[in-house]
Amino acid sequence: MKASELAKILGGTLEGDDVEVFACGGLEEARPGDVSFCKDPKHVRLVESTKASAVLLPPEWDKGAPCAVIRVADPNRACMAAARLFAPPEPQRAPGVHPTAIVDPTARLGEGVHVGAYTIIEKNCEIGDGAVIEAQVFIGEGCRVGARTHIYPQVTLREGTVVGADCIFHCGVRLGGDGYGFNNGRREDGSVYIEKIPQLGIVEIGDGVEIGSNTTIDRARIGRTYIGPMTKIDNLVQIGHNVKVKGYSGLIAQSGVAGSTEIGYGCLIWAQAGISGHIKIADGVQVGPQAGVPQTLDGSVKYVIGTPAETMKDFGGRVLLPKMVSKIKAEIKGIKERLDSTQEAK
Amino acid sequence: MKASELAKILGGTLEGDDVEVFACGGLEEARPGDVSFCKDPKHVRLVESTKASAVLLPPEWDKGAPCAVIRVADPNRACMAAARLFAPPEPQRAPGVHPTAIVDPTARLGEGVHVGAYTIIEKNCEIGDGAVIEAQVFIGEGCRVGARTHIYPQVTLREGTVVGADCIFHCGVRLGGDGYGFNNGRREDGSVYIEKIPQLGIVEIGDGVEIGSNTTIDRARIGRTYIGPMTKIDNLVQIGHNVKVKGYSGLIAQSGVAGSTEIGYGCLIWAQAGISGHIKIADGVQVGPQAGVPQTLDGSVKYVIGTPAETMKDFGGRVLLPKMVSKIKAEIKGIKERLDSTQEAK
Amino acid sequence: MKASELAKILGGTLEGDDVEVFACGGLEEARPGDVSFCKDPKHVRLVESTKASAVLLPPEWDKGAPCAVIRVADPNRACMAAARLFAPPEPQRAPGVHPTAIVDPTARLGEGVHVGAYTIIEKNCEIGDGAVIEAQVFIGEGCRVGARTHIYPQVTLREGTVVGADCIFHCGVRLGGDGYGFNNGRREDGSVYIEKIPQLGIVEIGDGVEIGSNTTIDRARIGRTYIGPMTKIDNLVQIGHNVKVKGYSGLIAQSGVAGSTEIGYGCLIWAQAGISGHIKIADGVQVGPQAGVPQTLDGSVKYVIGTPAETMKDFGGRVLLPKMVSKIKAEIKGIKERLDSTQEAK
Repeated sequence: MKASELAKILGGTLEGDDVEVFACGGLEEARPGDVSFCKDPKHVRLVESTKASAVLLPPEWDKGAPCAVIRVADPNRACMAAARLFAPPEPQRAPGVHPTAIVDPTARLGEGVHVGAYTIIEKNCEIGDGAVIEAQVFIGEGCRVGARTHIYPQVTLREGTVVGADCIFHCGVRLGGDGYGFNNGRREDGSVYIEKIPQLGIVEIGDGVEIGSNTTIDRARIGRTYIGPMTKIDNLVQIGHNVKVKGYSGLIAQSGVAGSTEIGYGCLIWAQAGISGHIKIADGVQVGPQAGVPQTLDGSVKYVIGTPAETMKDFGGRVLLPKMVSKIKAEIKGIKERLDSTQEAK
Repeated sequence: MKASELAKILGGTLEGDDVEVFACGGLEEARPGDVSFCKDPKHVRLVESTKASAVLLPPEWDKGAPCAVIRVADPNRACMAAARLFAPPEPQRAPGVHPTAIVDPTARLGEGVHVGAYTIIEKNCEIGDGAVIEAQVFIGEGCRVGARTHIYPQVTLREGTVVGADCIFHCGVRLGGDGYGFNNGRREDGSVYIEKIPQLGIVEIGDGVEIGSNTTIDRARIGRTYIGPMTKIDNLVQIGHNVKVKGYSGLIAQSGVAGSTEIGYGCLIWAQAGISGHIKIADGVQVGPQAGVPQTLDGSVKYVIGTPAETMKDFGGRVLLPKMVSKIKAEIKGIKERLDSTQEAK
Repeated sequence: MKASELAKILGGTLEGDDVEVFACGGLEEARPGDVSFCKDPKHVRLVESTKASAVLLPPEWDKGAPCAVIRVADPNRACMAAARLFAPPEPQRAPGVHPTAIVDPTARLGEGVHVGAYTIIEKNCEIGDGAVIEAQVFIGEGCRVGARTHIYPQVTLREGTVVGADCIFHCGVRLGGDGYGFNNGRREDGSVYIEKIPQLGIVEIGDGVEIGSNTTIDRARIGRTYIGPMTKIDNLVQIGHNVKVKGYSGLIAQSGVAGSTEIGYGCLIWAQAGISGHIKIADGVQVGPQAGVPQTLDGSVKYVIGTPAETMKDFGGRVLLPKMVSKIKAEIKGIKERLDSTQEAK
């Protein structure tokens, strides 16, 4: 697309060469052919060194640019609009079942459902109106998927999984695998045994839940592992059996929640954090990145960090310990010297 | 199911309304339609506030309940039995090869093997009697899978993988990917090179091993990456090349073991723990959650925690350091005051 | 294979029984039928106790062995050669498209491309000469894959992903999933909202990149998430949206990089490390295992470790804190005693 054409679409005006542009990128990572944007004069250096072919700038910008400029009222918003123009077209998943999909005759599909190639939908499943089940998905017996839920390729839902409406599951999501549960000990003859505890429950996902690539959520031992409405789960997260996430919470990449723990409303679990089993995280609590939470957080503290998790203030104090100890050592040295002189003085 | 019907099946007696029940759930998470259970009078508050439609209680319970009660001798056991009744039916994977499965003519399938839709079994594979290979699985050339092993959908076994009998592999398990091995340095002309080291070995899994969803186990550089019998591996675990797990051990979710390390019999590696490469963990040692183990553990300590891993006592002491340092600061202040007064006194 | 036959192939000479050998293994893990190797006399104990059927030893070795010996000039190199002989044959992926693969007519396939069974290649994709796309892969609309790139089974590339030449993607790799991005807050009526931010960019992978099993790389919000040439990524790694890895770097298993962060050339991110979003890691910096990096590393320190990440020296000092504090307590006790005696003396 010509920069002039883009300027027209964005309601801006072009200054400089009418270059060809075909992608968006931040000032630093932009490459020739990219359109970038800047709003704040304090980033003037980044504008000066950008390799973008054109940059979206506000009317008041008077610092120039090393490339074509498109003046627009709101560079951020204009860049989002440009990104939308350049984005790979969202693939159309038209209603209908691909001829290679294997949908059991007892499964009930709502209006306008899309089922992709090589997808398998087993007995007694129910798929809600307008749901998109992409290619190579596996949906086991008796699953229910709500209206407009979008399941990307190569997701697996084990038997009995219940999914609400308007959910998005990215590639490789695994719902309903057996929870990790074993009895072990020694038999009368002294030999060791490890015995699988049957995992008889299900996974139930509320409305509006998004789950990232390769995240795993285990079925309950009995009852349900429950992810409440509007919860947003990132990639490679692990949710153990019988966990309950009330809703409106976020779980960032590679975090994990052990079995039977309850996460309140509006919590945020940051990346790589780990939460022990059989505890509760109160509504609105945030667990910082890489934190390890061994026990219930009752909400009296709103943000914890570290392993074992503590307040930001305590964690900050702990980080400073080496300096404090050095200072103490110096003080002790001084005290000893004073003592020496005191005793010599006698 | 009517509560009266359930009571009859469980050999108990119904007190109160003959409500409809269709699932199980713990006292706290239970919802209308659920059966819950309680054994211990100390949980009376949870019984009082449960939303279950019926609760399984022991004969001696005299504290009432806000819903129907089914009296049974052993509430825990009865609830497991009820859970089994309500559980989604375990899908029947009858013997036979689905017409869409692609099984190489040189592959040998034992008696009663199930092969699901869109599964691929390549040349020279051997699948033992009664094994269940579900849908959309990939089994590369020359793999061997033991009798009664159950492989859930979308598992991949790269060429040459050897699997024992009675194993369970959950969705998305990846066995036999190349280990991470590269030579790098600079050529005579100063340019950098990174060169792949061929990964020529295999993965070998003993009998009775269970592997959780999306767990990855790499093939050996030479020889075998070995997971011994009855080892139970949770979801999203990473096992590097040439690791040897002797057997009867557990590796909990998101833990990782780097290349060439050996894990003894009866070890337990807790969630998100990391174990360095080329070391040994002695029989029966437990590595706590999020611990990082940089060197061999000879078994003189049975449980380690922290990064770098140390004894529970040392870790506990470390956690208390800020308090100890505060106390020390107070003591130093006191000492200085005494010194001041001593010197003034002179 | 007979040991004598192997000796001949390796240009060595057999001493002892002409045993049958069929695999390789290190001295400690070797089993009957294995060939092992030793070069260094200091490992004589491991040779003495090995269960290998034959061991490759150098000419000068005079310490005997409990099994057949094959004398070779360079035992390490000879063992690699033997491993290659015993390795499962690398499956041949001949040029051609499997009849069950679904390749959109608008997709352009180069010369000699292999497309495996049940693989899906959507509209307007371009696959370079000699690329191998194995079975059960999903390649969304408009993706480009470079020459000779090898994609193992059950990988997914979402629409618009761009991949260079000579890459290797292991099973379960997920490229181009939506980044984790939400706006949230409260509406005028007090109700909470969580709103998905459109993820309009792509993933772009340079030449020679290897990506391990079940690793996930998110598409950019706008622009590209970029993995530069020759970067080697291990299993279960998470790369957030708009991350830029310049190239020639390594990211070891279960590490994670949050959104918009830039990793320089020649960096090494060790296992389970986590790197915050919107920061920079300078060229050549190494981030130790389980480290947590909260802010930009400018390259003045070449190796960091711990959470928050610090120098190896500072981390080592921190590890020693409990000992230092114990020593300080002892010193304070001594000081108090001196003070007591000083005051008593008065």
